[in-house]
Parts: sequence; C-alpha cells; structure tokens
Amino acid sequence: MTEQAIPSASVPATISRQELRELVRSQLEMLLEQQNFQGAKALLVPVQPVDIAEAIEGLPETMQAIGFRLLSKDEAIEVYENLDSSVQQTLIEDFKRQDVLDIVDKMSPDDRARLFDELPAKVVRRLLSQMSSQERQATALLLGYEADTAGRIMTPEYIALKETWSISRALEHIRNRADMSETVYYLYVTDSARRLTGILSLRHLVMGQPEQTIGDIMTREFVSVQTDADQEEVAQLIQRYDFLAVPVVDTEQRLVGIVTVDDVIDILEEEATEDIYALGGVQAGGDNYFQTNLLTVARKRVVWLSVLLLTNTVTTWVIRSQEAVLEQVVVLAAFIPLLIGTGGNVGAQSSTVVIRGINTQEIANRSAFTVIRREAIAGAFLGIMLGVVVTGWAYLLQGNLEVSITVGISLVAIAILASTAGAALPFLFSSIGFDPALMSAPFITTVVDVLGVLIYLNLARYVLQL
Amino acid sequence: MTEQAIPSASVPATISRQELRELVRSQLEMLLEQQNFQGAKALLVPVQPVDIAEAIEGLPETMQAIGFRLLSKDEAIEVYENLDSSVQQTLIEDFKRQDVLDIVDKMSPDDRARLFDELPAKVVRRLLSQMSSQERQATALLLGYEADTAGRIMTPEYIALKETWSISRALEHIRNRADMSETVYYLYVTDSARRLTGILSLRHLVMGQPEQTIGDIMTREFVSVQTDADQEEVAQLIQRYDFLAVPVVDTEQRLVGIVTVDDVIDILEEEATEDIYALGGVQAGGDNYFQTNLLTVARKRVVWLSVLLLTNTVTTWVIRSQEAVLEQVVVLAAFIPLLIGTGGNVGAQSSTVVIRGINTQEIANRSAFTVIRREAIAGAFLGIMLGVVVTGWAYLLQGNLEVSITVGISLVAIAILASTAGAALPFLFSSIGFDPALMSAPFITTVVDVLGVLIYLNLARYVLQL
Repeated sequence: MTEQAIPSASVPATISRQELRELVRSQLEMLLEQQNFQGAKALLVPVQPVDIAEAIEGLPETMQAIGFRLLSKDEAIEVYENLDSSVQQTLIEDFKRQDVLDIVDKMSPDDRARLFDELPAKVVRRLLSQMSSQERQATALLLGYEADTAGRIMTPEYIALKETWSISRALEHIRNRADMSETVYYLYVTDSARRLTGILSLRHLVMGQPEQTIGDIMTREFVSVQTDADQEEVAQLIQRYDFLAVPVVDTEQRLVGIVTVDDVIDILEEEATEDIYALGGVQAGGDNYFQTNLLTVARKRVVWLSVLLLTNTVTTWVIRSQEAVLEQVVVLAAFIPLLIGTGGNVGAQSSTVVIRGINTQEIANRSAFTVIRREAIAGAFLGIMLGVVVTGWAYLLQGNLEVSITVGISLVAIAILASTAGAALPFLFSSIGFDPALMSAPFITTVVDVLGVLIYLNLARYVLQL
Repeated sequence: MTEQAIPSASVPATISRQELRELVRSQLEMLLEQQNFQGAKALLVPVQPVDIAEAIEGLPETMQAIGFRLLSKDEAIEVYENLDSSVQQTLIEDFKRQDVLDIVDKMSPDDRARLFDELPAKVVRRLLSQMSSQERQATALLLGYEADTAGRIMTPEYIALKETWSISRALEHIRNRADMSETVYYLYVTDSARRLTGILSLRHLVMGQPEQTIGDIMTREFVSVQTDADQEEVAQLIQRYDFLAVPVVDTEQRLVGIVTVDDVIDILEEEATEDIYALGGVQAGGDNYFQTNLLTVARKRVVWLSVLLLTNTVTTWVIRSQEAVLEQVVVLAAFIPLLIGTGGNVGAQSSTVVIRGINTQEIANRSAFTVIRREAIAGAFLGIMLGVVVTGWAYLLQGNLEVSITVGISLVAIAILASTAGAALPFLFSSIGFDPALMSAPFITTVVDVLGVLIYLNLARYVLQL
C-alpha cells in the first residue's frame, strides 16, 4: 500500500513535523473522500498520536469522527487526550451528524467490525453522556455497537463510586449526581482504570455504618454483560435475577454503561411482537406498524406470501398429477381442503408450543427428541379422535364407505406427520441459526400439504382399487 | 330465616351471655357444616363482635376462617381485635389450610363476591406478611381476590412511613425493615387509618435535608391501583411510567400491598405466551406446558381442532354441492388448496397485526374503520401481485386460458375478502368481550374457505360457460 509509505519513506528525511502533519492530513482527507477506509486506517498506523490529533483537527467536520474511529483503541485514547478540549467537543458533535451516520450506515457489518476497534471506555462515557437517548441509538453504529446489542440500549447515566470512599462521601456524591442518573439504586464501583470491581445497592449503602468504606460493603461477585451481548440475553438475565439494572463492560472489563429494567420490559414486548408477527407471516419493522406506508407493508408481506404460494403450487401440481384418480371419483376432491387444513392446524399447534418454548427457554433442558416424540404421540391421539368423527361425517355426506375410510385413515396419518414436522422443524431451524418463528410455517405447510395429498390420493387408489 | 331469629327472639329473655355465645357457635357450626354460607352470614348480622369472636374461637379449625370471612368489613376488624392473639395466629394458619381453600375454590365467583366483603387492610397485612408468596397465591381466593388481579400478585413486603417523621427517623426505620421488604426504593406514607397519602423514593429521602419531614418531601400525587385491577392493566401502568412498583389499595384507599416490576415482567411474558398460544390454536394453562400430561394436552387442543374441522366440513360440503362443475373440468379442483391456502395466509397476516395492535394498545387511538380499510387496500395490492403470478403459472401448468384467468381473478377477490375479514373480526370479538387472539382464526378460515370456494367455482361456471 503506497499510502502507508508516504509519511515514513517517500518524504525527504528533513521534513518538518508541521509538513508531516499536513501530508498526513491531506492524504487522510483524500482517502476518506474516496471512502477508502481500509487505506486510511493503514495510513495512520505508523503515525504518532500527537500528529494524528493535529491531522484530525485539520479535517473537514464530516470526516473527523470517521477518521477518529479508524484508530485502534490504544491510539484512540491517546489521540483523544491530545485533542484540544474545544476539538473534543466538536468531535462529539460530529458523532451526531446525520451525514456521518449515513456513511457508517452504508458499510456492511463485516466492514464495520474490521474497521472499528472498540472505543476507549473514557471516550464512550464522554460521548454518550452528551447525547439524548435517541441520539445514542442513532450513533451506536458509529460507536461500533450493532443493532439489538447491550451497547445499543445501555445508558451512561449511572453513578460510579470508589472503593476507598466512606459511606458519607458516597452519599454526598449520590446527592450531587442523582439528577443526572437513570438509577441511584444500583451503584457501581470502579478502579482508577475504570474497571468495574464491585457493585452495591443504595439499600446496602443506607444500611451501612458511617465508618465503613464502599470497599467494605460492596459485592465483588456480580453479573455484567459485554457491549456486544444480545439484547434478548440481557433482558432474560434481568428477568431471571429480578435485577433493576445490569452493568455493561467492554472487553477490558471497563464500565461503559448500564441497562435498566424499564428498557428490558420494552425489549421483551418487542421480542414477543416479533415472534407473534413471524408466526403470522408478517415481517416486523422497528417502527410502529400502523404508521408504516401501505406499499411498504404490502412489499414486506408479499415475500412470505410468495414463499407459501410456491408451496401451494407444489400441492396443485401434485393434485394435477393425480388427476386420473380424481376423474374417476370426483368426490375425493371435496375432502382435500379438510385434510390439509386440519393437518396444517395440528402442525401449527405443535410448532407454536415448541417455538415459544425455545424462545422463552422453557424447553432448554429437554432434548429435542423427547419433545418431538411427545408431540408425535399427541398428534396420533388427535388424529384418531378427529379421524373417527371425520369417517362418520364423510359417510353421511356421500354414502361411500371406501371413500370415508380413506379420508379417516389419511387424517390420522396426516395428523402424526403434521405434529412431528411441527415439533421437529423449529429445532432444526434453531440449530442452524434461523429464527424458528419465521421459518417454520412455510415448511410445515409444504410437508403437510404435499405429503398429505400424496398419502390421501395413493391410499384412495389402493382402497378404491382404481 | 329462622336461624336469624334464634339469638334475638326465640331464646328466653333471661339467657346468659355465655349461653348466647354457645347457641351462636352451635348454630354457626351446623350451618357451616351444611355449607349454608348465606344462612351463616345472616345468623351473625345481629350478634355483637365480642360474642362473634367467642363463637369463632369455639369453632373447629376448618370453619374458623370461613366463619370469619362471612363477616362484613367493619365487623371483621372488630372481631379480629377481640380475638386472643393466639387465636389470631390460629386464624392465619387456617387461611393456609388446604381443606379450607378447597371449600372456597368450589364456590362460584358470584357466590364468593356475594359472601365475602373486602377484608380490613390491617387484617390483610397481618395475614399476608405471615405467608410465603406461594401461600399468598393459594389463599388469595379466600381473601376475596380473583385470579389475574392486583390482589393476587401484590406483596405486603413494603415499607410504610408516617408524614410527621424526620428523614433520619425514616432512614432508621428503613434500616430495621429492609430485610423484610421486597423493595426499599419506593416508600409509602400512610395516615393513622392506613390510608395511602403519599409516596416517595429512597432517592428523594437520601437527597433530603436532615431537618425536613417525610411530609415535606413526599409526593402527594401518585398512581395506585385497586385490589381488583386486572394484572395486565397493572403491568401496562408500570411499563408506561417506568415505575419500579405500584401501590395497591382497597376501596377505602387503605394500602394493602405493592406490585413490583419483576412480577410485571413475568406477567407480560405470560400474556405474550397466551396470545401466541391462542394464535396457534393452543389453550394456555397456568402451568409449564412441557410438564402437562399428554392426554390433557390432546384434550385441550382437540376443542380448537374440532371447531376448525367443522369449518372444513362446511368447505367440503360446499365443494360437494358444486361437484357438477368439477366433474366437467376436474383440473379446477387442483387450484382449490392454493386459493384458500393463500387466502388464509393473507387473512392471518392482517389479523396478526390487528390483534397484536389491540393487545399492546398501539391501535387504541385509531378507529376500527381506518384500520380495516387500510388492511383491505393492502389485501387488494397483495391479491393483484399474486394474482398475476398465479394466472401465468396456472396457464403453464394446464394450458387452459379461461381456467387460468378464473384462478387469477378469484385470488384477487379472496385476498381482499381475507384481509378485510382478518382485520374486522378481531375488532368484533374484542368489542363483544371475547379474546380476539383465540377467536379470530376459526372464523377467518370459515369466511375465506367457504366464500372463497363459492366465488371460485361460480366464477368458473360463468367464465367457462358450464
């Protein structure tokens, strides 16, 4: 890479510091303009932090934040310390700029992960505490936090204490900070390197003796999550332990924020909505559905409908291929919707309980095999109960015993098939990393419809001796 | 009622107090044994609280709690005060007895409401604070709290303060009580009659000046719920306001408990599971599904399947009645599953978003008409998109243009019908007090299947000039 060589090799040995900085700045600006982020990142590797700071200060505002984010974590903190406090402030403003965010938004997740090192905890805190919660959401990608992770939902509005403080000093600190903090009920103890070393609750603080220090009463065994933890995991953690908040730390165990219980409630509701939508074949957007444009709505739904249509065309094709049977006994056609409809319903029941069980982790300690066998047996029970009823009803409707028995036996077979597929497919999709709620319905329908019609019409051929 | 006359009229004027008490006791025991609760309630009306107390003390243990619950609220508190402290303790034990609870469990909700007045707040607190959370759940019916209400999920483990207390006295009180309290972060201020007059948070207490009183810093405007508030409403309240807890009061505004945020998370998850199960045609039990007996599972599911089967038999009957058309052009039968399948999917999408919108109250401020029209238009879009594809595909499959056009046009009509029914039926069921998640699917299926087949085969008759 030629860019990398510029500051170190291709410049004269006698270049002044000022000239070097100007060179770095102009090269950096050019590379950023070309959106050659990989090149820009490489350019900065051999340069001293103090020179990078100067170069970044000289960049146009849209480029400052991106340039800064291309630095490694260690460099970033040094460069940040070398920036003028007024430039530090400008940098924070840059992190909120929509044109900057648009650039980041266009990168692929892989690119972002490769380009952006973790931000230093100190800088994260400074940045986040000057933003509203909406701004935090918007800038989170630029900070390196992917959607639906702890980094996205955390707030920097927590109170941090030091181990050596007395209880009265801590209470004084809380009094001064309470208005700026999301919760004062959980307090976080950090060392000089911002590493989280303990937590304590306001309850413990209030119950402590005045002569005790924070180190005396804090809990050293605590639960924390990393910035890249999935938000659903964080929610389940808070739910399981009845926490009011959980601390979020970076890879070096430095405290960068907390996630509070009220956010968790919203996340759990959002996740439930997603599950329900997926089961109903609707793609959940982040937005309120009822405010979404109608064409967008139709476009989102048509994908799933088309997948199911494909399923249905296979069914149609199978029926068409068995037309010889139908031509001889047309009344057989009248029972096809009943058979595949009931099969679909049995399959939906099995997949509903299995999918919900997987998502709420109720099923976690059971083997897939046990659950599938259980559902298959339930399907057999249901098939027999319904099959008897249907056989009688079919006989009443058209008076042909062979047709009635064919319908009844087919229903039992289809119910077992449907409940087994309904229980097994969610496990399959879950194990290969797909959302079972979204994926199961079309596949269960396909299995039940296609195999169901084949079972039915072939059984008819055999029983009716066609 | 002759029982009522016994203590006041049919006894000699010279009866001693002791004889009167013995009479009341024996009459009460007899009536309770006969499970004539209405008669027992009437018997006690004219008797003095001190005499009732004596009579109750003399009852067998299984009857004490029930006898006590038949008193009016005012009487109950006076009788309770007149009981020996050892009998007060026995009474609490009686409230936990399974045989007592079984008696209450057998009463109809109407009977319970008629027989059981609200318990005095003081007695509720005493009772509840000596029970584990499971015991509280079990005894809640005897206390007069129906399932899924605030009274069922509240805990008596809160800290109550007095307005006149200084901050330091309040902190001292909290230190002593913290271990027995579910939360110390919200504090409740009550007057001498246990009425809730204010709330304050530990945050405010810690931030107050030592010379201030609780009355100075407490909030007099607060949100509370009654014991009979639906648990889902309580959950939504806590969710909306980001509370950590909400106080529960009786009809006289006396504080009887609090509901905390961790319970709310569990309730919201439970309600989401219920919704998801209902959509999938599974009846949710209170228990973990995977621990339920398989026959119970099958029995619960078969009800819903039978309803849907009835739907399907109607479809079969309709197809059978149109057999003349099918006999002439057998290939028409091959497209029936495709048409009603796609219609069902379009209907499921519309009903899913509408049902979830109703349940999360996202839809609350929109008129049903607006939402239904919106869905109908979305259905038309979807129908046209899919109809074009299907027409082409049907032509490729069987080469008859008239049949292909019939299939395509039918699909458009069915999609509009399905999305309209899918949006309208949840509103209808919701407005007449049924759970839309549970009721919608069978009815949408019926409308789509039956009307869909009729549209399709009649259109075929017309287009193909059969």
